[in-house]
Amino acid sequence: MPENDRIGKVERVMIVAKRGRSQARTAARRVARLLARRGVDVSYDPETARALKQGRLGRRPGGRGRPIDLYIVIGGDGTLLALARAIAADPRPILGVNLGGLGFMTETVLEETGEVIDEVLEGRCALERRMPLQVALVRGGRAIARQTVLNDVVINKSALARIIDIGLSVDRQFVTFYKADGLIVATPTGSTAYSLSAGGPIVHPSLEALVISPICPHTLSMRPLVIPATSRVELSLRGADSEVYLTLDGQVGHPLRSGDRVRVRRGHPPILMARSRRRNYFEVLRRKLHWGER
Amino acid sequence: MPENDRIGKVERVMIVAKRGRSQARTAARRVARLLARRGVDVSYDPETARALKQGRLGRRPGGRGRPIDLYIVIGGDGTLLALARAIAADPRPILGVNLGGLGFMTETVLEETGEVIDEVLEGRCALERRMPLQVALVRGGRAIARQTVLNDVVINKSALARIIDIGLSVDRQFVTFYKADGLIVATPTGSTAYSLSAGGPIVHPSLEALVISPICPHTLSMRPLVIPATSRVELSLRGADSEVYLTLDGQVGHPLRSGDRVRVRRGHPPILMARSRRRNYFEVLRRKLHWGER
Amino acid sequence: MPENDRIGKVERVMIVAKRGRSQARTAARRVARLLARRGVDVSYDPETARALKQGRLGRRPGGRGRPIDLYIVIGGDGTLLALARAIAADPRPILGVNLGGLGFMTETVLEETGEVIDEVLEGRCALERRMPLQVALVRGGRAIARQTVLNDVVINKSALARIIDIGLSVDRQFVTFYKADGLIVATPTGSTAYSLSAGGPIVHPSLEALVISPICPHTLSMRPLVIPATSRVELSLRGADSEVYLTLDGQVGHPLRSGDRVRVRRGHPPILMARSRRRNYFEVLRRKLHWGER
Amino acid sequence: MPENDRIGKVERVMIVAKRGRSQARTAARRVARLLARRGVDVSYDPETARALKQGRLGRRPGGRGRPIDLYIVIGGDGTLLALARAIAADPRPILGVNLGGLGFMTETVLEETGEVIDEVLEGRCALERRMPLQVALVRGGRAIARQTVLNDVVINKSALARIIDIGLSVDRQFVTFYKADGLIVATPTGSTAYSLSAGGPIVHPSLEALVISPICPHTLSMRPLVIPATSRVELSLRGADSEVYLTLDGQVGHPLRSGDRVRVRRGHPPILMARSRRRNYFEVLRRKLHWGER
Repeated sequence: MPENDRIGKVERVMIVAKRGRSQARTAARRVARLLARRGVDVSYDPETARALKQGRLGRRPGGRGRPIDLYIVIGGDGTLLALARAIAADPRPILGVNLGGLGFMTETVLEETGEVIDEVLEGRCALERRMPLQVALVRGGRAIARQTVLNDVVINKSALARIIDIGLSVDRQFVTFYKADGLIVATPTGSTAYSLSAGGPIVHPSLEALVISPICPHTLSMRPLVIPATSRVELSLRGADSEVYLTLDGQVGHPLRSGDRVRVRRGHPPILMARSRRRNYFEVLRRKLHWGER
Repeated sequence: MPENDRIGKVERVMIVAKRGRSQARTAARRVARLLARRGVDVSYDPETARALKQGRLGRRPGGRGRPIDLYIVIGGDGTLLALARAIAADPRPILGVNLGGLGFMTETVLEETGEVIDEVLEGRCALERRMPLQVALVRGGRAIARQTVLNDVVINKSALARIIDIGLSVDRQFVTFYKADGLIVATPTGSTAYSLSAGGPIVHPSLEALVISPICPHTLSMRPLVIPATSRVELSLRGADSEVYLTLDGQVGHPLRSGDRVRVRRGHPPILMARSRRRNYFEVLRRKLHWGER
Repeated sequence: MPENDRIGKVERVMIVAKRGRSQARTAARRVARLLARRGVDVSYDPETARALKQGRLGRRPGGRGRPIDLYIVIGGDGTLLALARAIAADPRPILGVNLGGLGFMTETVLEETGEVIDEVLEGRCALERRMPLQVALVRGGRAIARQTVLNDVVINKSALARIIDIGLSVDRQFVTFYKADGLIVATPTGSTAYSLSAGGPIVHPSLEALVISPICPHTLSMRPLVIPATSRVELSLRGADSEVYLTLDGQVGHPLRSGDRVRVRRGHPPILMARSRRRNYFEVLRRKLHWGER
Repeated sequence: MPENDRIGKVERVMIVAKRGRSQARTAARRVARLLARRGVDVSYDPETARALKQGRLGRRPGGRGRPIDLYIVIGGDGTLLALARAIAADPRPILGVNLGGLGFMTETVLEETGEVIDEVLEGRCALERRMPLQVALVRGGRAIARQTVLNDVVINKSALARIIDIGLSVDRQFVTFYKADGLIVATPTGSTAYSLSAGGPIVHPSLEALVISPICPHTLSMRPLVIPATSRVELSLRGADSEVYLTLDGQVGHPLRSGDRVRVRRGHPPILMARSRRRNYFEVLRRKLHWGER
């Protein structure tokens, strides 16, 4: 696997904490003190600023103003995904701090935060590039929505209908119609999220690939597909007589109509994840998936 | 496996055809002629009577009046399931005729209909008992809905939420909380329907058992459970912050609220399926699942 | 599920310890002291007697002499399986003590041994019946080997060949040919052993059923089958050009030849497992399979 | 996906037919006549020459002499794999003709042979590059065997033992110990062979990746891993008390000892597959896996 980059000089940090949890607020205050003590300029996104009752108003992540050198997310993988989408146009390094256990992306646990922040400030941290996807929802020949995602693009039926019919084509070659509960197109990063629950493989984040996994397929011989990230993927919804949704990173939803097309391709530029060298990808896998325990 | 019963004398038949398909109407007329020629009294359910523009009004399946000796369903497994629920309180033999290919329950294909009807009228047909389930939806300690199902009881999240939390207990013993897209409790009959798509095993219809299969479970070590049909199963929905539904045989839906309980137990009496002896259960499996093809 | 029986009066206990582990010898001595202090007559199987350097010679489990009221197995599930087969003709209650963690069958952990022995002696323990299988290997029309098993009957290819062809029939009805690495017929007890690794469901031990699971099937639509325990199962090996083996409980092996038939049916009488009421089946599942952990 | 290359001028063809099948001999004679009629110089490998009772002695594939422009394999995927390994050091285009149905690699069926040969001779055929693997078996620090494979590297236990312990490291990072029946490292080409039966995903042949799939893993949360083809993979066998084998492309076997290491890395140069443009990869998938059939 390619040598990861190193993180650059960090002078301005924005803290983004998970909403509504007092544990997140306490951790945010602690991280802010740690940074201030080291002479780093700390700001907050508006939500966090309000929650912490900061005098200074927060700044919108990815908004105008002096560039942020590092975002510190305090919460879980969901909080990090939302931030990554918000700053997708101009990515800056993100450090994820998890409030409970270990996340696939929020790899730093609370107790280690001080040491990991030192690693970051001293330039000892790795900077890992994670490939995003660019998604367009096309209706009647026109893109009615566009979005960058880091984990996955999901077409899913509502609870009441049982089977939907989703056509897949890759580089204009027809692959198949999936009669299923839904279909997931995941990045390597997303391969350990919803795609894994649906039976998809674990794809190393340094591989430029997409995973396409059906959800509860009617045809039992269907298996997840792994294709190059340079592929142009098109999903089309056929004859849906019930509610079907497009869901992006599990967070943004669009109702779909029969005939809608969803185009997925590799996004640019990559999301930048600051990672402590104390833990590699496989160690996170082992711990999250309880490998090696009896 | 226990010897199946034989079908009794058949003098009155009701034809129930799938709505809205001209192929079903044509087949219904053909079956009616076949029966009339053999001196059988033929009636229709109201929908079919209307579709066929019968002078005589149809009768409601399971309704009052002279007892029906045999229902002939023309359509697919879904049409048969709806009829089976309608006559669950006083089951009569059902013969399923499939309009396309072969169904797991509608095993007779159109071309064979004449011969199979002869087998039925001459008492050469087998009568297979299929165990139903009795389901109660309990809210605030009170059963607000009750239903008999033949295939499955499903708790399913809506498309937009990702994970729900369903508690399972069996005979008042706590089993686990499923963090998943949903949970399926299936009869042996239902084991080849939705449960199979979710990774459940195939359970022979003569086994008195239930299959409990999670849909896309978050915990990767979760596997389908098979328990005795005499078990009392209780599902409880914990802290759902989004739309969750209870779906019965894939056809009847109820929105669920956090704290709702779904109680499932074996139903009585069994559904009665008239089956030609020309084809056994395993042959249907092989053909439906393409076993043995290269 | 049916109420379990209670264990009867326990006056004579035989201790059977896993060979060659000093931890097993230490535990065996401790258990012997606990029993002696309570006035119970303790004996050993020959291997354990030798390992403990007992003056008295050991007795063969299931052998002649005054009947044993309880066997205490100290080791793991494998040690218990071997004992269960040895006493299959005249089963006596077995209590399993695990040397490391928790076993599916050896549910008592070392630290609890004293308390659980009290439960047993005071008649507070449950006695669970576990259904065994009777297996016959038939060559040229003649049974050349017979065996009782508690977990599973496995036909398996050797490492070098890739695919074998195993025919399955149930109650003389042909099911299918499995092109696979092998095929497993498991009891409910065995459903949490090898069958589970091959993708089989978990079957509650109170259900009278068999699970048939292919190992790495060539046909992707093949799924595990659950059938009534009263079924007569026959496996036949077709055209094996390489080494294929029949393995019983993972411990006893027979080389197979093309044309061999393996007949499996329910065995009698049931194996008797002494179980503390402090832990039910589902709790063991949760702990062994890490359900509910994040 | 990258545009495939075109095939060059074809003047010398070697025919390699599956041994011992009269259908293969008939097809070989027919193909030879087709080629001769078009002025192509035809030769045979020694086995095929002998089977066809050719006056001319056959030549060893990959041996010295005037270079072969195209190998035509008549048989199945196994025959093609053996040839691909034989000419791995100096790959020449291979066209696979299947004797029954369609193979994943032998995509041309007998009836199409004439037309596809015309496509090849007229330069209308595509030339697809398939990545091989280079495998070394290391014992006591020394490589005691080396081999190029196109499909997969498999460590497999013999039939009698149940579980082996295989360590995996990727780029010197420890991944995990697999307690399993075995472990498969497959190329994209091999992803539709044994790896698929073991639960692995389908990987498009244009993706430079490896799939690592456990066979019947003891730890239920283990899932197939997809990693970059540039990774250096090392498997190590720990404490095997029974027979364990290394199998290459399902055809070449080596017994393993505890402590043995198997090193796998991308091989060079790529295998060259001549493919008719009449059928793309996804169509072969659909037909082989019965996707889209009911």
